[in-house]
Amino acid sequence: MENKKNNFSEWYNEIIEISGLSDKRYPIKGMNVWMPYGLKAMQNIDRTIRQSVDSRDFQEVSFPVLITRDQLSVEFDHVKGFEGEVFWVTRGGNEPLEVEMALRPTSEAAMYGMFSLWVRSHADLPLRVYQIVNVYRHETKHTRSFIRIREIHFFEAHTAHDTYESSEGQMREYLDVWREISSELCLPYRVHLRPDWDKFPGARYTLAFDTILPGGRSLQIGTIHQYGTNFSRTYDIKYLQDNGEHEYVNQTTFGLSERLLAAVIGIHGDDRGLVFPPGIAPIQAVVVPIPSKKVDTTEYAMKVYSALVQNGFRAKLDNRENYTPGFKYNDWEMKGVPVRIEIGEREVNAGNVVMVPRTERKKIPVSLEELQEKLKELHTEIKRQLTDRANDAFHGNINRISKFDDLAEVEGFVITGWCGDKACAETIEKRFEFGTLGVSPDNNETLSCIVCGKPGREGTFSRSY
Amino acid sequence: MENKKNNFSEWYNEIIEISGLSDKRYPIKGMNVWMPYGLKAMQNIDRTIRQSVDSRDFQEVSFPVLITRDQLSVEFDHVKGFEGEVFWVTRGGNEPLEVEMALRPTSEAAMYGMFSLWVRSHADLPLRVYQIVNVYRHETKHTRSFIRIREIHFFEAHTAHDTYESSEGQMREYLDVWREISSELCLPYRVHLRPDWDKFPGARYTLAFDTILPGGRSLQIGTIHQYGTNFSRTYDIKYLQDNGEHEYVNQTTFGLSERLLAAVIGIHGDDRGLVFPPGIAPIQAVVVPIPSKKVDTTEYAMKVYSALVQNGFRAKLDNRENYTPGFKYNDWEMKGVPVRIEIGEREVNAGNVVMVPRTERKKIPVSLEELQEKLKELHTEIKRQLTDRANDAFHGNINRISKFDDLAEVEGFVITGWCGDKACAETIEKRFEFGTLGVSPDNNETLSCIVCGKPGREGTFSRSY
Repeated sequence: MENKKNNFSEWYNEIIEISGLSDKRYPIKGMNVWMPYGLKAMQNIDRTIRQSVDSRDFQEVSFPVLITRDQLSVEFDHVKGFEGEVFWVTRGGNEPLEVEMALRPTSEAAMYGMFSLWVRSHADLPLRVYQIVNVYRHETKHTRSFIRIREIHFFEAHTAHDTYESSEGQMREYLDVWREISSELCLPYRVHLRPDWDKFPGARYTLAFDTILPGGRSLQIGTIHQYGTNFSRTYDIKYLQDNGEHEYVNQTTFGLSERLLAAVIGIHGDDRGLVFPPGIAPIQAVVVPIPSKKVDTTEYAMKVYSALVQNGFRAKLDNRENYTPGFKYNDWEMKGVPVRIEIGEREVNAGNVVMVPRTERKKIPVSLEELQEKLKELHTEIKRQLTDRANDAFHGNINRISKFDDLAEVEGFVITGWCGDKACAETIEKRFEFGTLGVSPDNNETLSCIVCGKPGREGTFSRSY
Repeated sequence: MENKKNNFSEWYNEIIEISGLSDKRYPIKGMNVWMPYGLKAMQNIDRTIRQSVDSRDFQEVSFPVLITRDQLSVEFDHVKGFEGEVFWVTRGGNEPLEVEMALRPTSEAAMYGMFSLWVRSHADLPLRVYQIVNVYRHETKHTRSFIRIREIHFFEAHTAHDTYESSEGQMREYLDVWREISSELCLPYRVHLRPDWDKFPGARYTLAFDTILPGGRSLQIGTIHQYGTNFSRTYDIKYLQDNGEHEYVNQTTFGLSERLLAAVIGIHGDDRGLVFPPGIAPIQAVVVPIPSKKVDTTEYAMKVYSALVQNGFRAKLDNRENYTPGFKYNDWEMKGVPVRIEIGEREVNAGNVVMVPRTERKKIPVSLEELQEKLKELHTEIKRQLTDRANDAFHGNINRISKFDDLAEVEGFVITGWCGDKACAETIEKRFEFGTLGVSPDNNETLSCIVCGKPGREGTFSRSY
């Protein structure tokens, strides 16, 4: 396998292929096949997301993939932001369509005409829905699995509120939801208020969650958007106030994608392969019997496996013949299974098992009575380790710079004073090939702009995916 | 509400709207919005399907929605069967695409090029995968929610085998899977071998599962297809035999769709609304407190609700203010919740609850100790009732006819002798506006053709959706 540290990009492509997450040999560029193991991981991430929003009474819906040109054109800034990368359906059978239709690049235009039918009064607010669907972008840049693709597995929440204050409360709640999800995935991040020229098309402002992959480039792994009444005015979404007047609703959205899986692969993996956080691992524990001529390790392993499955663990029994235990160990390590359970002659005789965490080279004997409890504890310990390691690497990639020329040598996030002007950001972007991630929304400290010297705030720049 | 028996079509449209299953006001014909309640029902049906195929070691995958014209054109009969109803993507951004791409009408053309990369030897066989995705048909006929639409929620299993015999074993296993699923949904059906001119484009033969909706028209709710080597020869899917020769694989598929939900709505519903089989009900039991001035029925109801949720039931507590218990009863009956749990002053004092099944007008007192057990029993009883009622209606709609002119008056399935010739089938189709569903695969009894009198087999005809 490629060395992760020295050659992250090749390591990333290789591990996705050999671990069976995705097959990119499909004949359309940027449209890959979700293989069983990768799809299970993504479905587990989806379940984590659903749990978090369902517990807050969001309702899941599913809108059509096609959006007419008329629907899309309602909000000018919005359509302008996407028009270069929309796939257009123009023919049905052998006949041209009367109305051209876009494959959704995102679903504002699909949803908001319906919102205007659904929202009538206070009783309909807040309206809070989400969907997990694929969205489509005719990406012309170089594509990369789970990071830059043309068919994107996407979570999008959309809300409507009576007041701007209420929609701001929703923005804060999104941060709670995001803390739950990122914690389950053991992903470190910083929140950035995107500069105006890089906010979501049609938004009032955009907050993005940015992490750093090995090699030092940043990856946007989530965004929340405050729309205010920008869309409700154009899509005519309003409610009847107590005073008899109609008022436009305030709206927000929250977007996540398969980039979450990309971040899990890139941040937790090592030179032996993937490492899945236990909460989203397709297989949480693999049971490997070590053949013995004296006792039946396979039968014993089956019992252990059954006990785990009955207790709700996602377990796997590897009783393949013609493979050595050593081969199997390497195979499941490569696939990132958090815990291996070895069962040899000694374990059968002692009535215990040996647990081996993916994160350490230690072997832990566990009695059968304590099997579920100890596995749960070990999962918690692994989650903590992954979180700590990821945080350490992340913080090692945060560089606070105060002299312009010092920007030349750094990787990861560059944090420096910035006045907020586009011209100064562009000076940094062009000279060092950085992108502007924006300012820290909760830090109002004054810092001199590293370019022009005027008073500014803490700004973050980086090379990005 | 419309009367179901006298005006099924209007009843069907109305109940879908008022129960919140789907909203068809989306601006593209035949593309509807899945509302939260409808989506949950469909997801529960999907879970039933997944359990059944996962337990048989099928692997879930997800292929891209787009298929190039080249991919689609590999199998001539196949593309010919779909070309009139394919949506074509022809432009990306403002530029015409170099290669036009279809929205998948079904995924043979997407999958089989990849199968030819995946299958190398015996060790790769049988290959058994499935996906649950949307497929697209540019339907020009009148559309109807969940029955004839342009964006179809679809389950498709695809397998590849070393021998034809093995693929025939797969066809038999599909029947087991289908028995499990249809049993959970309480749906009666007959299996028909479709006539050659109506088999799946590219298939060797097609078996269809047909049921009957109120009003007497039949609905195809599932199909399994034997492809033999028809596709593997054109998509070049072969494996190395022990003798060193390469041999083409034999393939099968199994397709199901949101028509399963249509059948559940149409077959089990009544004049009070939907009736969901407990296994797929979005809400399996609704707890309704009846306000009392003497005791706190809401607090008691909350405890009952919590106990149900903790024991894995999909329960709902209806503590809405400003609605009478009677209003709530009607509301949840309309939404088809299988069991209502009433909690009034008497129940709080007695330490019990009253259970009311959606299928009968009886009230069953149940002590708190027996809550889960009795609810489970009641669900089983309701499932049995729905199955029995559906079977009775189904069998009442099966008409065995032996004189040609007697075909004029019947609804439902017409079963009669048929020689198998297209000309004779067309005589029946044109005269009585029937469709030909095909012959019963397991009945080899000889019957004289009702048209030409020649020896034939049992054939089924009906008006169809």
